[in-house]
Amino acid sequence: MNTSELNTIEQTVGEIRLTAPADIASVVRERWDSLTKPRGSLGRLEDDVVRLAQIQGVAMPVADRRCMYVFCGDHGVTEEGVSLYPSVVTREMVKNFVRGGAAINVICRQLGITTFIVDSGVAGPRLEGVIDRRIAEGTTNFRRGAAMTREQAARALESGIELGRDAAGKFDLAGVGEMGIGNTTAASALLCVFTGAKPEEAVGRGTGLDDAGLAHKRAVLTEALAVHHRDPADPLGVVAAVGGFEIAMMAGFLLGAASRGLPVVMDGFISGAAFLIAQAFAPAVANCVFFGHRSAEHGHARMLANRHAPMLDLGMRLGEGTGAALAMGLLTSGVALYREMATFAEAAVSDTERIAK
Amino acid sequence: MNTSELNTIEQTVGEIRLTAPADIASVVRERWDSLTKPRGSLGRLEDDVVRLAQIQGVAMPVADRRCMYVFCGDHGVTEEGVSLYPSVVTREMVKNFVRGGAAINVICRQLGITTFIVDSGVAGPRLEGVIDRRIAEGTTNFRRGAAMTREQAARALESGIELGRDAAGKFDLAGVGEMGIGNTTAASALLCVFTGAKPEEAVGRGTGLDDAGLAHKRAVLTEALAVHHRDPADPLGVVAAVGGFEIAMMAGFLLGAASRGLPVVMDGFISGAAFLIAQAFAPAVANCVFFGHRSAEHGHARMLANRHAPMLDLGMRLGEGTGAALAMGLLTSGVALYREMATFAEAAVSDTERIAK
Repeated sequence: MNTSELNTIEQTVGEIRLTAPADIASVVRERWDSLTKPRGSLGRLEDDVVRLAQIQGVAMPVADRRCMYVFCGDHGVTEEGVSLYPSVVTREMVKNFVRGGAAINVICRQLGITTFIVDSGVAGPRLEGVIDRRIAEGTTNFRRGAAMTREQAARALESGIELGRDAAGKFDLAGVGEMGIGNTTAASALLCVFTGAKPEEAVGRGTGLDDAGLAHKRAVLTEALAVHHRDPADPLGVVAAVGGFEIAMMAGFLLGAASRGLPVVMDGFISGAAFLIAQAFAPAVANCVFFGHRSAEHGHARMLANRHAPMLDLGMRLGEGTGAALAMGLLTSGVALYREMATFAEAAVSDTERIAK
Repeated sequence: MNTSELNTIEQTVGEIRLTAPADIASVVRERWDSLTKPRGSLGRLEDDVVRLAQIQGVAMPVADRRCMYVFCGDHGVTEEGVSLYPSVVTREMVKNFVRGGAAINVICRQLGITTFIVDSGVAGPRLEGVIDRRIAEGTTNFRRGAAMTREQAARALESGIELGRDAAGKFDLAGVGEMGIGNTTAASALLCVFTGAKPEEAVGRGTGLDDAGLAHKRAVLTEALAVHHRDPADPLGVVAAVGGFEIAMMAGFLLGAASRGLPVVMDGFISGAAFLIAQAFAPAVANCVFFGHRSAEHGHARMLANRHAPMLDLGMRLGEGTGAALAMGLLTSGVALYREMATFAEAAVSDTERIAK
């Protein structure tokens, strides 16, 4: 590896706690058991609050200040006709985000989540109302060559790290989402490289391809993978070869957030690919994230294998962070329950389990 | 059947629409497809909003005014030692509800749901701060004889109908929950009678029985079922034999709400039993309810067989309406998306599917 380009990244990786603190888990479980409900009866909400406390490093976790970062970028591979929608829709949807008319805006408004739209690499003139971290006007077609340079990949990751660190100073809980026509193809490529999945396992219909479109997308991915030398032990090289600016920046965000104890809720397939990148740099990032939902996108199940189960399974495949935002609502409820429920003692409710001890 | 006791019930059943209106479904689906997202990409949220619109009988459903009714009652069968907690906990928990310290209070506060606590038949002196519809101070031990008289069963159903109709005039979306030590035993008995399930399929650990407690609860249920003549075609007789006041009143609520176009979100195992009662009176009530979550209580899966899949699966088994309330949050998000998202035309986003047509 080129060490100079990895300075910020390596430093951040070094700041991520390697194990979840066990002492916090036992304190949190003890409080859960003191609250007026049968033990364990809130199911995974109890487990999720334990994890949230461990990530935040406190016994009384908080989820009052919530944010959603939507990373946006274009993809050269759309030249190959891998998406139902034209590339310009990325830009059109960014404008829709800025005006507040997209699905993610509606959910975040309803749930009190502050939304940030990040231009990681959208084609066309500079956009208003976004956080401008644009690396370039979209990636290069990775069926023909590298999607980006190593230097661009590093810059995308570093920008994400900076945003993640910054968010950690202002928020208690974050979600991530994305917009990028063609990015399911890049995410599929990342899934293949990092997990050894075959293209047919990794490629899905994206925004809604028919059977012929799906077969074509698989063929494009197979050919693209043959173009590149792929070494999962060199995650920066993998990102440069087949990644996307918004995916790399999201991976950086995960690392930056994890290094500062900010829990992040993943969305679906694309954020899952960002997680694979982040994990390749720092396996312990797995302790710091929640998988918000199981996407209907083919390949997401493979991506989620052996991880904490996703919180929701609503057959959604919209992206933008919509699944993450809904899951953040559940986590917020979990934290409220943990903080606000009366104890058996406070409510003078008989706790036979306690008495029996 | 004794027709005089069934007047209100029969009249209500007659008011429930037999089929969901197809014209509303197509109008709602058309709007979903005009919004800035890939078609169908919000998964079951889209389907749920279609159903909500059909129940409300309007093309623009609304979920602004939300309520939760928690029905509370005691159970004579607790004499048999079927629960981990003593009967008095029902009463203690009602007081906890009234003070706002229970799980259901916390979730409803967080999600903006107005909570009503209904005394359907709690033992002891009259309670403050509740809707008093008390039928008696708990049911009789149904291992020894009928849980209640047919007249009491009818009164419980009628009170529920009245509350459901009343709620329909004030709210857009309702949830139901319950509190009643011993009521998983009654719900298991109802599951056996209405579906033909065997006691071992229907009985679970409730608030947390160990293996010996579980075996004892099964034996009690088996013996109790042998005591009663059970005819699913006489639902009032079934309720009288093995029901509970809070379960019967909740069943009435479902009928009353359905007759007035108020969608109701079910909670878990106990509300599932109430649904079985309501469905025995009026099969079309199935069109008017949502199953909020899959409870961890053994037997709930059997109860949910062949129904709309539950929205959440979080391993919860607390009751009180907690699973229903969380699902109401998701439905509220679904309605917000449907009402507030920009259309392709409004946002000037390219819709290739539309163009291709």
